Amino acid sequence: MIRFDCDYLEGAHPKILKRIVESNFEQTPGYSNDEYTKYAVAKIKRMCKNEDIDVHILVGGTQTNLTVISSILRPYQAVLCVETGHINVHETGAIESCGHKILTVKSEDGKITAEQIEMIAKNHNDSDMSMHMVMPKLVFISLPTECGTNYTKKELEDIYKTCRENNMYLYIDGARLGYGLVAKDTDLKIEDIPNLCDVFYIGGTKQGALFGEAVVIVNDELKKDFRYNIKQKGAMLAKGRLLGIQFDTLMNNELYFTLSRHAVNLAMKIKEALLEKGYKLLYDSYTNQQFVIVPNNKLKELNKEFTFFKVKDIDKNNIAIRICTSWATTEENVDKLITKL
Amino acid sequence: MIRFDCDYLEGAHPKILKRIVESNFEQTPGYSNDEYTKYAVAKIKRMCKNEDIDVHILVGGTQTNLTVISSILRPYQAVLCVETGHINVHETGAIESCGHKILTVKSEDGKITAEQIEMIAKNHNDSDMSMHMVMPKLVFISLPTECGTNYTKKELEDIYKTCRENNMYLYIDGARLGYGLVAKDTDLKIEDIPNLCDVFYIGGTKQGALFGEAVVIVNDELKKDFRYNIKQKGAMLAKGRLLGIQFDTLMNNELYFTLSRHAVNLAMKIKEALLEKGYKLLYDSYTNQQFVIVPNNKLKELNKEFTFFKVKDIDKNNIAIRICTSWATTEENVDKLITKL
Amino acid sequence: MIRFDCDYLEGAHPKILKRIVESNFEQTPGYSNDEYTKYAVAKIKRMCKNEDIDVHILVGGTQTNLTVISSILRPYQAVLCVETGHINVHETGAIESCGHKILTVKSEDGKITAEQIEMIAKNHNDSDMSMHMVMPKLVFISLPTECGTNYTKKELEDIYKTCRENNMYLYIDGARLGYGLVAKDTDLKIEDIPNLCDVFYIGGTKQGALFGEAVVIVNDELKKDFRYNIKQKGAMLAKGRLLGIQFDTLMNNELYFTLSRHAVNLAMKIKEALLEKGYKLLYDSYTNQQFVIVPNNKLKELNKEFTFFKVKDIDKNNIAIRICTSWATTEENVDKLITKL
Amino acid sequence: MIRFDCDYLEGAHPKILKRIVESNFEQTPGYSNDEYTKYAVAKIKRMCKNEDIDVHILVGGTQTNLTVISSILRPYQAVLCVETGHINVHETGAIESCGHKILTVKSEDGKITAEQIEMIAKNHNDSDMSMHMVMPKLVFISLPTECGTNYTKKELEDIYKTCRENNMYLYIDGARLGYGLVAKDTDLKIEDIPNLCDVFYIGGTKQGALFGEAVVIVNDELKKDFRYNIKQKGAMLAKGRLLGIQFDTLMNNELYFTLSRHAVNLAMKIKEALLEKGYKLLYDSYTNQQFVIVPNNKLKELNKEFTFFKVKDIDKNNIAIRICTSWATTEENVDKLITKL
Repeated sequence: MIRFDCDYLEGAHPKILKRIVESNFEQTPGYSNDEYTKYAVAKIKRMCKNEDIDVHILVGGTQTNLTVISSILRPYQAVLCVETGHINVHETGAIESCGHKILTVKSEDGKITAEQIEMIAKNHNDSDMSMHMVMPKLVFISLPTECGTNYTKKELEDIYKTCRENNMYLYIDGARLGYGLVAKDTDLKIEDIPNLCDVFYIGGTKQGALFGEAVVIVNDELKKDFRYNIKQKGAMLAKGRLLGIQFDTLMNNELYFTLSRHAVNLAMKIKEALLEKGYKLLYDSYTNQQFVIVPNNKLKELNKEFTFFKVKDIDKNNIAIRICTSWATTEENVDKLITKL
Repeated sequence: MIRFDCDYLEGAHPKILKRIVESNFEQTPGYSNDEYTKYAVAKIKRMCKNEDIDVHILVGGTQTNLTVISSILRPYQAVLCVETGHINVHETGAIESCGHKILTVKSEDGKITAEQIEMIAKNHNDSDMSMHMVMPKLVFISLPTECGTNYTKKELEDIYKTCRENNMYLYIDGARLGYGLVAKDTDLKIEDIPNLCDVFYIGGTKQGALFGEAVVIVNDELKKDFRYNIKQKGAMLAKGRLLGIQFDTLMNNELYFTLSRHAVNLAMKIKEALLEKGYKLLYDSYTNQQFVIVPNNKLKELNKEFTFFKVKDIDKNNIAIRICTSWATTEENVDKLITKL
Repeated sequence: MIRFDCDYLEGAHPKILKRIVESNFEQTPGYSNDEYTKYAVAKIKRMCKNEDIDVHILVGGTQTNLTVISSILRPYQAVLCVETGHINVHETGAIESCGHKILTVKSEDGKITAEQIEMIAKNHNDSDMSMHMVMPKLVFISLPTECGTNYTKKELEDIYKTCRENNMYLYIDGARLGYGLVAKDTDLKIEDIPNLCDVFYIGGTKQGALFGEAVVIVNDELKKDFRYNIKQKGAMLAKGRLLGIQFDTLMNNELYFTLSRHAVNLAMKIKEALLEKGYKLLYDSYTNQQFVIVPNNKLKELNKEFTFFKVKDIDKNNIAIRICTSWATTEENVDKLITKL
Repeated sequence: MIRFDCDYLEGAHPKILKRIVESNFEQTPGYSNDEYTKYAVAKIKRMCKNEDIDVHILVGGTQTNLTVISSILRPYQAVLCVETGHINVHETGAIESCGHKILTVKSEDGKITAEQIEMIAKNHNDSDMSMHMVMPKLVFISLPTECGTNYTKKELEDIYKTCRENNMYLYIDGARLGYGLVAKDTDLKIEDIPNLCDVFYIGGTKQGALFGEAVVIVNDELKKDFRYNIKQKGAMLAKGRLLGIQFDTLMNNELYFTLSRHAVNLAMKIKEALLEKGYKLLYDSYTNQQFVIVPNNKLKELNKEFTFFKVKDIDKNNIAIRICTSWATTEENVDKLITKL
């Protein structure tokens, strides 16, 4: 069985494993106070062209989202995102579990607009009744989105400007940040990100690491005591060096983006094949996730050799599926898939 | 200024005040362990024609909703309601503050349907990915709804049946239960309610009491240790007899429904006047809340003498307002309003 | 049966009831936006000789404590109090329910010392491991304490100085503030309190009101958005005027302190009788709560006519009880008790 | 610098790394639905001689404690442990962050007694006032304790019996379970544990794994929906196979206990040397953690070559430190330490 259902099927890039093995018997202090983490943080600062950021490396995505969001909001404040936002759908109420409401807006392609943010801010802030409603204080976006789409630099600038005008913070979930930034439908560069949000994270789990997500806090207001939150949420890895080694390796010589490009190139190959063969796409994605509508019986046939993630039924005869590539996907397997499409 | 903006503008029915004054120097045990509360509970059981219910009288609506809902749900379980549900919009994230997600469905008239409940249950329960989503476990409805509309007995039966089939509980917010049950668009009687839900509350604050909401727990599974929750949420009134006296009085000789009828009759008088004069209604309500669209300049004129609750802008020239009557509204004031409409 | 078990046995001072009855059919805006509340707030400011304080009147004590404390602390911050602190023992985990740890220190008489605060601050702040522990950020004291004891002005000054030196806030639970301030074992005046803490509350429930606790926020850092917290915690009374009327009445012509003195004088009469008759006191209290050790069989005899609160077993033959007076206690009943002691 | 400050200084046993490397490019389903996890679970069941247990492998200790405890308790229920319990001291209020109070009892050696449990249960359950207090529902113990001490089979039987008699659950934190079970001061075997508690965890992080703690749920009442909790708390590792591989390897041929014995033997060698040289021990530990009192100047000298964890100041001239061995400690380093003691 060849799996295309997600981008965390394999382990890690071999260079990472090599360094974990090599350093295995070194004695390092715990809780990310080790040298490897220092190296990784330094490389991330350099890559972001920003020495003033705080960097903390956590283990997983839901963990990162709940730790970051709960550290920003006061109890009566809410986070705003699109209905398909990962925190709204696929984190088992982790944000609400920390006490915070998620406000949502509709979206066709997984993206939020500056206008939507403006409208929500206005609706929650225009009367004596405001205190009967939560206060929207944080905007959550995924880059790329859960639909594989991207924000342009202009769009992100507009969103961030609107956030600041309405006294809201902006947080970018970058679980697939590399896959997003190498895609051809955005002009954003990694060094733009710290200028266009208050906090974001650079995903590792889906991008070549065994696990690990590097939180980058840009806004000074959000930096204080963050490690208390990490510990309280159970997100402080005892052997933090494992996180340090992984990000130090990924950030070395842009390995992170090399791996990202590999995945996205293969996804584009699949996309072209799909379009050529007349399949209809659910979203127009230029990143490593491709969403395509297939007849049920075609899927049944494909499932003999390949696995995908089922997104939703389209009608009685058709279903939307997600085809994922990753840093570890082989061209050989992609070709096999294309042949059978 | 004559106020029609809500149904908690005045104090309480004079009979309630009289008894509070008369009993003022009696020494009663605290925390609803007094005799007045026992009398009130007995009357509620009789009215509901059900001796097996547990009754607890709390102070306010948001307090009641958060205490009830947080006592029912496990951390990963969610409550489902319409987008306009009070808990979703006007309780400052109280439910999320207790750790629980609110799932919502769209509704034109404030009512949820059995089909919508079925669909949400199905969507959250059909795959290996279920545990990445919250588990819908409780349906919240308001009777009457926040839009002034009512459920028929058949509708409520269908909803409750669907809840039970999907292993979900049903909770009815009865902040205006009396105003709902005396309305002509429902065939529900108070004694039907315990048979058609797991827990509900009989509102007092908007229905003739100074304050107070009587929670009725029907389902045995939800009865245990409820008083611990009341105390923890800060909802246990020290001088609980104040709650007992109020409900004992309201339940006496059906005063509760007499007051309800008074308010609804006056609301119907306003409704007829509105329709006669060609106003368009936002919702077709037969209860004490009337939602009507008025030209902005007309509202400006009315506001010289009357206050209303502004619901939302309809377009540049028109606005939807709510006109509320209550047990304390005078026919004289209603007539003044009608004259000026 | 004559009850001495607590100080919330009766209703309210008749002047309060009179005004509630008189104003019953006035239409006032909800949620403490009414004129009565404005009057009450103005009187509290005058009494405190401080125009810069924010005042919010809530319904009950546990509700007030959880609303205030959860609005001050970040998730990883803790509140510190003595083991017998009300929030630690008798609020069903309300503070923890909001996510915050309560750190405790031992105390013989219900009082915390500046040295204890210093020590806790130091222990939580002296190493790399700090973030593995909660951060003590708030000190909670009761004035008078749960043991009936008082702080002197010098003690409170030392405590507050230590709090500020250690970057901690001080919150005073004044459920029985009046009973404390009129006692002869403190030199504190009401106008001293705003200078010696960041936030406190003036208790009403036990001091002549039907219910109600007036939160006074002194520190500007703690004022922002407090009404959002009130609403979220279910602590916003719809008919807020009931709270306004009560405090406006209590604050008029120092009725609050007149009532307090009545209760404390009667308590002193009981105390003298106890000492004269050779009873041993558990704590040396000069406020309305007297804690005395009685033989079990003596208690049995007394219980035929009187009720008390049982504090704890002292040994096989003796038990400590609490005798409470209040604004409503009659000298006649006190004399009856003294006769039987 | 040779480090003895904790037992998570190095990486993992080489066999673990070897298998992670070998399986790196296998495609496995996420979220612990992989084959390696199945193997690990099967081996744990066999080792426990109990096929009815549920096993879930999480990443870290604090994460495990908060996930397990919050899944067991209702909001008003509390967990009971000794004052030195890890959840009470070194988890930044993680348990309270989930809404639950930790009740504590004093202990000289880190152990709780059946009598203490009985007393707490009684104190919280003997009157009308019970609901004003939290309900103790879970006992938390560490085996071995944070002081390095162990429970005998008789002691654990008594504790568990008392728990059941008082309607409480028992949870054992086994962060160092192996180090405890191979020690000579307990007669407990691994297969006894499932019979003497409701849930426990087998620690990996400190026992030869890179990370990982295997939760074993024995009591059927606690099994339902546990994976929802794991996900919600951010504790569900995407590449769960990493956890499976590690525990499958550790459980193979009792590697887990072989490594445990290695650490404990070296700890005993240190202990004997300490006693021989006249040092006073803080606790009488037979596990891998040794707590010893050293003169400050002696510590200063030792710190030139060795690191330890500082427990607390004993007096002006002496300090208590912890010396930790682990599966990775070398006899050579132990001998170097002994020479310098």
